[in-house]
Amino acid sequence: MLRAVMIHPSPNSGRWTATGGVRAISFHHDAPLQLSNGKRLSPLTVAYETYGQLNADRSNAILICHALTGDQFVASPNPITGRPAWWPRIVGPGRPIDTNRFFVICSNILGGCMGTTGPSSPNPQGDGAYGLQFPMITVADMVRAQAMLVEAFGVETLFCVIGGSIGGMQALQWAAAYPKRVFSCVPIAAAARHSAQNIAFYEVGRQAIMADPDWRGGAYDAAGVRPSKGLAVARMAAHVTYLSEVALRQKFDRNLQARERLSFGFDADFQVESYLRHQGQSFVDRFDANSYLYITRAVDYFDLAVDFGGVLAQAFLHSPTRFCSFGFSSDWHYPPEENRAIVRALIAAGADASYVEIDTNKGHDAFLLEEPQFEAALTGFIDAAAAARGLALGSGANAA
Amino acid sequence: MLRAVMIHPSPNSGRWTATGGVRAISFHHDAPLQLSNGKRLSPLTVAYETYGQLNADRSNAILICHALTGDQFVASPNPITGRPAWWPRIVGPGRPIDTNRFFVICSNILGGCMGTTGPSSPNPQGDGAYGLQFPMITVADMVRAQAMLVEAFGVETLFCVIGGSIGGMQALQWAAAYPKRVFSCVPIAAAARHSAQNIAFYEVGRQAIMADPDWRGGAYDAAGVRPSKGLAVARMAAHVTYLSEVALRQKFDRNLQARERLSFGFDADFQVESYLRHQGQSFVDRFDANSYLYITRAVDYFDLAVDFGGVLAQAFLHSPTRFCSFGFSSDWHYPPEENRAIVRALIAAGADASYVEIDTNKGHDAFLLEEPQFEAALTGFIDAAAAARGLALGSGANAA
Repeated sequence: MLRAVMIHPSPNSGRWTATGGVRAISFHHDAPLQLSNGKRLSPLTVAYETYGQLNADRSNAILICHALTGDQFVASPNPITGRPAWWPRIVGPGRPIDTNRFFVICSNILGGCMGTTGPSSPNPQGDGAYGLQFPMITVADMVRAQAMLVEAFGVETLFCVIGGSIGGMQALQWAAAYPKRVFSCVPIAAAARHSAQNIAFYEVGRQAIMADPDWRGGAYDAAGVRPSKGLAVARMAAHVTYLSEVALRQKFDRNLQARERLSFGFDADFQVESYLRHQGQSFVDRFDANSYLYITRAVDYFDLAVDFGGVLAQAFLHSPTRFCSFGFSSDWHYPPEENRAIVRALIAAGADASYVEIDTNKGHDAFLLEEPQFEAALTGFIDAAAAARGLALGSGANAA
Repeated sequence: MLRAVMIHPSPNSGRWTATGGVRAISFHHDAPLQLSNGKRLSPLTVAYETYGQLNADRSNAILICHALTGDQFVASPNPITGRPAWWPRIVGPGRPIDTNRFFVICSNILGGCMGTTGPSSPNPQGDGAYGLQFPMITVADMVRAQAMLVEAFGVETLFCVIGGSIGGMQALQWAAAYPKRVFSCVPIAAAARHSAQNIAFYEVGRQAIMADPDWRGGAYDAAGVRPSKGLAVARMAAHVTYLSEVALRQKFDRNLQARERLSFGFDADFQVESYLRHQGQSFVDRFDANSYLYITRAVDYFDLAVDFGGVLAQAFLHSPTRFCSFGFSSDWHYPPEENRAIVRALIAAGADASYVEIDTNKGHDAFLLEEPQFEAALTGFIDAAAAARGLALGSGANAA
């Protein structure tokens, strides 16, 4: 059933196009993706990476949902950008998500730019890329596309769906949409609804992109240009929200960058400026501006309770899934309170739910960084869930 | 000594140019402004507004320092932009700063765009506006320019210097630079140093402006264009930091703007988006992009302790000034902790210092909004200081 093909991202989308391919599966007209806005998307390509081996009864699959600007290369270098694995502390042999034991699937999200169909994909109804002709998508749509991939692997029930940030939103959506197909669920540094403040910051980023004349109303691919300056500003604005004030103070404070005194000019006098400029510049080399618009919009739209009469607990009523939610004390993008609200809803729904709040200065990005307590608690939850699932230690395909 | 002249802001700086003039005083080559970067600025024009009457012994003058995007029209409509007074609850007859009693001076800050010399002023060494030929300025430079204005009024000692946000930084700078000329000082929602997070947000704004091709390396005046899109994005990014998360949630939450359901598009579906877009758009009609660059940079550079061996208390040692500092609980731009740090330094210096922290959901902008406790505490401090200064109730010129 699984037709893995090597594909190249859209030819006009950036410097990564010439440097490699990615594994992907394509669904054609016989299997369109039903979108939340009522439309159907076809063809659909889902680019993915896997690690470890699926066991004989297909019970050891873990789906990892990546965050806004992540990709499918959760535990191996991205062959296109050359960037290292983005979650090496969590996924790999002997790691909390042990690839000697579990079959790990990670796919590029719908609307993304690392091989999965998105606004930079060819528009079957026109010449060149979709651009703004791409349909508006939602987190639920992202999850439906992932579900098609998981089905293609012949996996009926995922042992675990896990993700941080908007990956955590996807994990919650999975548990709400397909409760019987999710044995355990780990939303990390997430929220069940995107707040007004977060909509505001995303809107700043979108306006920065759209203000760039090279955006060309989204048709920059056809014009052979890219709205790099606008996209860099969008990334800078978002990036500030991923770090805590304390982390910025501890890491940079008001330290000067490669100089002993103020320049009395607009150079990057301060380390924090230099760091942010670098974040913006390096981002435009690996990300597509229209993807940024579509994915942020999808996240703005995320409010899981809306489909359940406005009561979040209803999304999880009678859920057989085991949940473990993680919050980070200094995260102000999706603060602990948002994560606690998830757990309160789960408990109100009678679900099996744990909550771990990690005391850290590292802000929202803490889940990507070295946090031994987080790793230990995650390992504990995964191991306990694996035991409940009958996945004894060493039950992976390698040991089978 | 005071030569008040009516001047018009730079002819190419925007729509306000044709609609009015402002009161201003000009200092020529015999009185250059000494800048922190070692250069001298001449000519210097300081645009100002006054309210009330200076009393016979010139002891009732209050200098109000405005915030980043404020102006001198603290208690009367701005005749150029048509915007109402920006602090009507605080300044006026019978208000905490009672213009029946005090002589209120408010000047447009150095680098500004409402009549005081700034990057949109004519460059005496060239054709047209300064643009990036304008020298880099500091908060200390802003205060030196204000001191020249105050001297021109024949006022030796100000009864009070007061300001919110970067107006509070100016007030602190006044007290540190001219302790004997400041009888009382009220820094509000301020900080003695601009944090890494705040530098980061300002840098996002500057990069947004500089990314706009109509910025033209700062020479947009000569080209007859304006970097309006970049400036709007800068304003939007900053504006989010002036509001608390709670305020955004209470005011907008995820409410839709003039629609019943999501548009599945990039229109402003959410009220918070519509509000932010409006903030950005209306800002470009009243503010100059280069002024935004220079003023934000001056604030980035503000770290009062640096000139005093890195010890903030040294800035206020033996200060005869009475201080009252205000912090607002939900302000995350200059959080209460920053305001408490000011007061701790004042107390360590043996200064006469009070601190009032207002419990509010309104965020940084709370000092501009209705906050009865703030108004009551400010009134109490002003009245007590006036009594100590020998300014009995009704001692203003009107009653003399």
